[in-house]
Amino acid sequence: MQLPRFAGIPTFMRVPFVQDWRTLDIALAGVPYDGGVTARPGARFGPREIRNMSTMTRPIHHVTRFNPFDVCRIGDVGDVPFSNLYDVELAHADIRQFFAPLFAAGKLPLIAGGDHSITYPVLQAMRPTKPVGLVHIDAHTDTWDTFKGSKFTHGAPFRRAIEAGLIDPHRSIQIGIRGAQGSDEGWRYSQAQGMRVVFIEAFETMGPAAVAAFAREVVGDGPVYLSLDVDALDPVYAPGTGTPEIGGLTTRELLALLRGLDGIAWAGGDVVEVSPPYDVGGNTALAGATLMYEMLCLFASHLSRTRHA
Amino acid sequence: MQLPRFAGIPTFMRVPFVQDWRTLDIALAGVPYDGGVTARPGARFGPREIRNMSTMTRPIHHVTRFNPFDVCRIGDVGDVPFSNLYDVELAHADIRQFFAPLFAAGKLPLIAGGDHSITYPVLQAMRPTKPVGLVHIDAHTDTWDTFKGSKFTHGAPFRRAIEAGLIDPHRSIQIGIRGAQGSDEGWRYSQAQGMRVVFIEAFETMGPAAVAAFAREVVGDGPVYLSLDVDALDPVYAPGTGTPEIGGLTTRELLALLRGLDGIAWAGGDVVEVSPPYDVGGNTALAGATLMYEMLCLFASHLSRTRHA
Amino acid sequence: MQLPRFAGIPTFMRVPFVQDWRTLDIALAGVPYDGGVTARPGARFGPREIRNMSTMTRPIHHVTRFNPFDVCRIGDVGDVPFSNLYDVELAHADIRQFFAPLFAAGKLPLIAGGDHSITYPVLQAMRPTKPVGLVHIDAHTDTWDTFKGSKFTHGAPFRRAIEAGLIDPHRSIQIGIRGAQGSDEGWRYSQAQGMRVVFIEAFETMGPAAVAAFAREVVGDGPVYLSLDVDALDPVYAPGTGTPEIGGLTTRELLALLRGLDGIAWAGGDVVEVSPPYDVGGNTALAGATLMYEMLCLFASHLSRTRHA
Amino acid sequence: MQLPRFAGIPTFMRVPFVQDWRTLDIALAGVPYDGGVTARPGARFGPREIRNMSTMTRPIHHVTRFNPFDVCRIGDVGDVPFSNLYDVELAHADIRQFFAPLFAAGKLPLIAGGDHSITYPVLQAMRPTKPVGLVHIDAHTDTWDTFKGSKFTHGAPFRRAIEAGLIDPHRSIQIGIRGAQGSDEGWRYSQAQGMRVVFIEAFETMGPAAVAAFAREVVGDGPVYLSLDVDALDPVYAPGTGTPEIGGLTTRELLALLRGLDGIAWAGGDVVEVSPPYDVGGNTALAGATLMYEMLCLFASHLSRTRHA
Amino acid sequence: MQLPRFAGIPTFMRVPFVQDWRTLDIALAGVPYDGGVTARPGARFGPREIRNMSTMTRPIHHVTRFNPFDVCRIGDVGDVPFSNLYDVELAHADIRQFFAPLFAAGKLPLIAGGDHSITYPVLQAMRPTKPVGLVHIDAHTDTWDTFKGSKFTHGAPFRRAIEAGLIDPHRSIQIGIRGAQGSDEGWRYSQAQGMRVVFIEAFETMGPAAVAAFAREVVGDGPVYLSLDVDALDPVYAPGTGTPEIGGLTTRELLALLRGLDGIAWAGGDVVEVSPPYDVGGNTALAGATLMYEMLCLFASHLSRTRHA
Amino acid sequence: MQLPRFAGIPTFMRVPFVQDWRTLDIALAGVPYDGGVTARPGARFGPREIRNMSTMTRPIHHVTRFNPFDVCRIGDVGDVPFSNLYDVELAHADIRQFFAPLFAAGKLPLIAGGDHSITYPVLQAMRPTKPVGLVHIDAHTDTWDTFKGSKFTHGAPFRRAIEAGLIDPHRSIQIGIRGAQGSDEGWRYSQAQGMRVVFIEAFETMGPAAVAAFAREVVGDGPVYLSLDVDALDPVYAPGTGTPEIGGLTTRELLALLRGLDGIAWAGGDVVEVSPPYDVGGNTALAGATLMYEMLCLFASHLSRTRHA
Repeated sequence: MQLPRFAGIPTFMRVPFVQDWRTLDIALAGVPYDGGVTARPGARFGPREIRNMSTMTRPIHHVTRFNPFDVCRIGDVGDVPFSNLYDVELAHADIRQFFAPLFAAGKLPLIAGGDHSITYPVLQAMRPTKPVGLVHIDAHTDTWDTFKGSKFTHGAPFRRAIEAGLIDPHRSIQIGIRGAQGSDEGWRYSQAQGMRVVFIEAFETMGPAAVAAFAREVVGDGPVYLSLDVDALDPVYAPGTGTPEIGGLTTRELLALLRGLDGIAWAGGDVVEVSPPYDVGGNTALAGATLMYEMLCLFASHLSRTRHA
Repeated sequence: MQLPRFAGIPTFMRVPFVQDWRTLDIALAGVPYDGGVTARPGARFGPREIRNMSTMTRPIHHVTRFNPFDVCRIGDVGDVPFSNLYDVELAHADIRQFFAPLFAAGKLPLIAGGDHSITYPVLQAMRPTKPVGLVHIDAHTDTWDTFKGSKFTHGAPFRRAIEAGLIDPHRSIQIGIRGAQGSDEGWRYSQAQGMRVVFIEAFETMGPAAVAAFAREVVGDGPVYLSLDVDALDPVYAPGTGTPEIGGLTTRELLALLRGLDGIAWAGGDVVEVSPPYDVGGNTALAGATLMYEMLCLFASHLSRTRHA
Repeated sequence: MQLPRFAGIPTFMRVPFVQDWRTLDIALAGVPYDGGVTARPGARFGPREIRNMSTMTRPIHHVTRFNPFDVCRIGDVGDVPFSNLYDVELAHADIRQFFAPLFAAGKLPLIAGGDHSITYPVLQAMRPTKPVGLVHIDAHTDTWDTFKGSKFTHGAPFRRAIEAGLIDPHRSIQIGIRGAQGSDEGWRYSQAQGMRVVFIEAFETMGPAAVAAFAREVVGDGPVYLSLDVDALDPVYAPGTGTPEIGGLTTRELLALLRGLDGIAWAGGDVVEVSPPYDVGGNTALAGATLMYEMLCLFASHLSRTRHA
Repeated sequence: MQLPRFAGIPTFMRVPFVQDWRTLDIALAGVPYDGGVTARPGARFGPREIRNMSTMTRPIHHVTRFNPFDVCRIGDVGDVPFSNLYDVELAHADIRQFFAPLFAAGKLPLIAGGDHSITYPVLQAMRPTKPVGLVHIDAHTDTWDTFKGSKFTHGAPFRRAIEAGLIDPHRSIQIGIRGAQGSDEGWRYSQAQGMRVVFIEAFETMGPAAVAAFAREVVGDGPVYLSLDVDALDPVYAPGTGTPEIGGLTTRELLALLRGLDGIAWAGGDVVEVSPPYDVGGNTALAGATLMYEMLCLFASHLSRTRHA
Repeated sequence: MQLPRFAGIPTFMRVPFVQDWRTLDIALAGVPYDGGVTARPGARFGPREIRNMSTMTRPIHHVTRFNPFDVCRIGDVGDVPFSNLYDVELAHADIRQFFAPLFAAGKLPLIAGGDHSITYPVLQAMRPTKPVGLVHIDAHTDTWDTFKGSKFTHGAPFRRAIEAGLIDPHRSIQIGIRGAQGSDEGWRYSQAQGMRVVFIEAFETMGPAAVAAFAREVVGDGPVYLSLDVDALDPVYAPGTGTPEIGGLTTRELLALLRGLDGIAWAGGDVVEVSPPYDVGGNTALAGATLMYEMLCLFASHLSRTRHA
Repeated sequence: MQLPRFAGIPTFMRVPFVQDWRTLDIALAGVPYDGGVTARPGARFGPREIRNMSTMTRPIHHVTRFNPFDVCRIGDVGDVPFSNLYDVELAHADIRQFFAPLFAAGKLPLIAGGDHSITYPVLQAMRPTKPVGLVHIDAHTDTWDTFKGSKFTHGAPFRRAIEAGLIDPHRSIQIGIRGAQGSDEGWRYSQAQGMRVVFIEAFETMGPAAVAAFAREVVGDGPVYLSLDVDALDPVYAPGTGTPEIGGLTTRELLALLRGLDGIAWAGGDVVEVSPPYDVGGNTALAGATLMYEMLCLFASHLSRTRHA
């Protein structure tokens, strides 16, 4: 990171590219796949542009002075090498196969998508002994069912994950939800299963600190997955995404929310739905990269606590 | 609306294109005219891009679960077919002629402009038996007088409408006003006539709910026209407009404001000044389309109440 | 077409939207599908933007003074209504099912894609009694085999069509081919099958008139399909496409080439690979719309001759 | 012009801003008006962006080593100060009034538009004792009649000028014409009046040198006006324009054409239809500025010859 | 300022270009220099684009109805004419030499940068008899030391100014600070010297009015320099800048902050780091121009008070 | 190169990143430096975007079926690690120091700039025993002298190289020269020194094959450096550059020219002046990457011949 920001080959945050992840604590990985979108594609280029913009990030946090690189071994393990791209389920199998050994070895993956459909195979790869908790920040609950012939689109991962016993809906919270829909089945499914759904109006009333406190309470002490869809942000902050909905979070609110989640026992996480072809000006990728850094701080903080415990 | 968002010919919200509007309750219409602008043109393409981006909207409101299509017959009646484009007053006559029979038949028009000059001929077409109320959301009062030889520019519609007895200034409110001017005559005219002018600083202090309550009180029970200039939004949310002024509304504030206006006896409305050539990234047209949907909910809610009364 | 170019709902060239295509001679149709791309997506928005930009086209050709609308009944039949989007083969079945009755009824379809994978199901829908001729204008031969698990990507349609006996390689010509490849199997397949492959260097040496004459000779008198990938154009003329290759055709060369193809017995055709998210400035969609108009002239000219024969 | 290109207040080619034009030989002027367009607006910003991009131009021509600033007094006289903007005929009167004294004083104006409608009032301001010759480079003949209620749109200036006896059709040539039309009346009018119409296909066959020779022959020895619409260029070279037509001139062809026109007795000229809102990347304004420099060389060369004669 | 916004040669706010600044009270000046940036360049074009967008500003403030042009003589004195551009220290000498006589003559300069490195030579040109106060609004403290061989980058001006005794750290405040860093030395230096550092989180908690009150208290009654880096704004409001950091100020907050600073004894000021090549859509330059107008009101208000005192 | 084009960390053409270059024949390297520009900056991001777009290139040439990776060991050695960025001469020393050991070890570097000033320190690093030949493709001769205090700007590298005896002007050719200048000293210097200067007009008359033959003749049998400034291309093909000049080469002409240079004894080369902030749409970086591939073929062809000799 001694290079000026415009120099060098862009790995995530300019950490070394590491083909053998066994020496790492936290593995930064890309999943360049957007075969599950229902509207605008392009998130297949998300990992590359997040890597590119992550050359603007730096290690020492201005609020906490925490430096995740001081306490953890962190590397870029590259992208999932797909052998199938034209069948959602086979592509998901490639994703599963890439992450399964990482999870099995106790590594913490921090993933840049790709569309939100990738979270389901990632959760499958985790093979949790019991369902994990979920903090899900998004404009959409992504608990819809079948769309145009598939049960595995980016509108469905958390429904599939609940059905498969991968996440515990009672230890799950969905934050930032908004936008008209053609049917209310997704919203109803989430609530019927016991997930806490914090619509944007409630978020605004409560404020990020209170929502974060509520989230910590909901997920409790067990392992938790953190899934962040950039469309949780207002389209002004994240124009480069597939299904923008006006009236969303500001980056300041989202940063405050994330910082309020420190202390949770993180098991992994992702930043998804950055779609560079729609990212006029690059602010979405810049936000994606910076949010990934904030998540890295959360994950490193957790690992650091764990070790000293 | 069963099509994926990227498919199909883009009518407003993908409702049927209806050349015979007699079967409708609410007529969605375009006025592709920008001959009244004083600075940057382009709003002539507003209806087309709002239609285009309205393929991203959906029917069921996430706060109210209200579906306007369940309670009203709604169609896209196309654009005003101009026979004159090079003389503002003759172009305005074309607009008047298009909307007069719709109003006469009791239809509720919801219009996508075009520049703000179009609101004057629309109000003329309404031929109200007594002056109507006005909720006007904008960065500018649009009560200036003559500019470069014309009394009918987009800076003047509400001055002309007051002079013509089409709107009642005492039942009128202007919200979001800001930005330096070369003369203060417009601001003074509005206030001298009895319009309530809520500058952005007052809006911020009061908050959207209080401003909405105040607006409901100002306009009272009679029929009210709702005119929404996208430059009420901060240029970050609406870069695609002709006379941007920094320091404006956020979409969240504007959505809250609109939702707070439910219960008013709407007589028609418009979303104006979306200028696609300046709409880098398309957020302005997306906001315009979504705001039009919110206004559709207000209008359908009003018709629904009226019927049951 | 009396509307100014910025007004009205954008069907292809502003012809009427016709749900019952039985009254037509030539059916303009969209196939908003890009599930077969290997690099950059976005062609799913091709039909919409080509319709949008086709509002700039007009009926009377400046070279021939021919007006296709004088001699044929032409309508916009809308887009293929997909029931499956997440499995290439099922999506192709939707395409096949949409076009099969049109071809069966003797209609001439002129199609806006979508990626090039759509041409294979269109040719299947044609169900020719014997293999048809092909004029294929493209940077790539699209006769590659399997990629990442699928035999039906946009790199493979003509290989599949030859295998299925839908096109006659000896009556087929591929024009504009260029760009390095990871393997030479596609080029070799085309030539081994007897297709004439006119690389860009040969095109430049011969000139468009001679290439057109050669193409007419190759395809002979029988029915011929015309498939035009906009990446045949240099990326300067067509930046909005999935796999750009520098050093391509100019629009003037392509217009001259197409005009030189008059007299062929056209059985249908397509303009594919217009990818609006990459179409900075809109020139690709403008070119796509204008080229579609030129193809319409070719098709109408053919129908006109046929009738008088 | 000692400033680096990014510094200083952008007058045309960074010549001094001169409010008293009496000391000049050639007056560079802007006409920021686009009220005559039929499709896309924006040319009102043409003078500003051409001035901006003209900071990239320099004085010594690389082919001739001619420096127009060595032989003529050249200044930027600013923009026409409009008193009327909302009635085409009144706006044209403002233009006429601005240029009439310049022409009367024997100054040579070199004008940046604005849309092409401005050429008619400029020619009126010239008040030639007998009709002047015309070299008109454009995709359109601009000899159409009434459109949407006006006889003074940008499609009509040369028809009006012929009717008014301002230009001599037998000493007029139109170069680069192309693009389908809704009616062929403009093309027929031009040819019926005796103008030479060089369609793009003929231009390509003849080449720029031969076309230039033909133009010199057509216009003969008398005074000639040079009107250059940037849409003569292919939309790839000039995306920022109101009515782009694919298949146009390259800049190299246009530069060769202009250089071939040296020796004509120039009476004035314009570069019109640069529309910055559509000029993604700025190439149109750069071309406009450079072409204006080439025209300046032609005009200065003429004045230089005249003096020495 | 009677011209429409799209007309005329763009000086700052369309005031006259004044080569002899002796008649002025406030001198608007440009410093087109970006040789001190550490990441993305482009601010050399800042003065030109701020001038361009300043044609959208007007004189009468909508909150105060104050018109700075009524009480002060204001002119555009052009850009620093650099004789050296390739050595930061020599370029800084050019800046110093340009502003020294203005300060010496008691003129108040209001400057558009350029990168933030220019503030150091401007402060040197001021040659204050004792260190001045500083209101510095920015995402970064710019009190870092050497970077890649230079002590004069845009990360260092306030460190150099403190070392040189040009500003009094105890009368200095830095507002809006945020963003991770590779080292915390800059933050520590500022605080160790006694500057008040208001990080964004504190700003949000306090609100703009309280921060403004605190700033007034910190700087006290003596002369104060106001330095505004547009990256204080969130990158959504100011994408066109060199080192964007998400989670920044909104324009509404910044306007409120500036307005709260009225009453301070201003000695000069700048708006820096507007980088047009990154300013997709132009909102940064629009904000820059409008903020410069707000600063002009502050400066004119101060001069007005001084005179009447 | 088995990854889809959107996946993986972008090294040049996706070759391995190699920190120890001793195992290579050809070293692909980046020089992210633009401190020598005279107009628009941004080329510091050239290496990154060329790497990014080079993911679209492939190994087998469509004309020759040559695969450079079959005959040479090729790796990406990363970017010059600058220790000084704010003094042109010190930055040049960093460049010299990076390349000197590569040249000394007989490696062939193929470099992505960066502005054209970098070529001088690269030639210094080469330390040729006698002056090398030069093929220089550019819009400008880059043989100007001092500008704004520096003799080492991007307008001067070849003047400095001749003075230093690094290149032999009699074995040097400059191709594509055009564009007005403020002085003719550069053109005169080149010609006075004996360099062959092929202006664009001569290029067009001769054609690329004849120019290539002439170049081969000029440079003869000894070692030759190939320097390619993307502004040789017309700004339509290369908008993303610092000093665009209209009327330039097409990519087809440039490809033909390069292919015609096969057989020369290459000693190294560069592609410079790709400026991503100005590269709307990415065509310049795509062209840069593809041209670098063509140069790689030339270099590998040379090495292959040398070995078999």
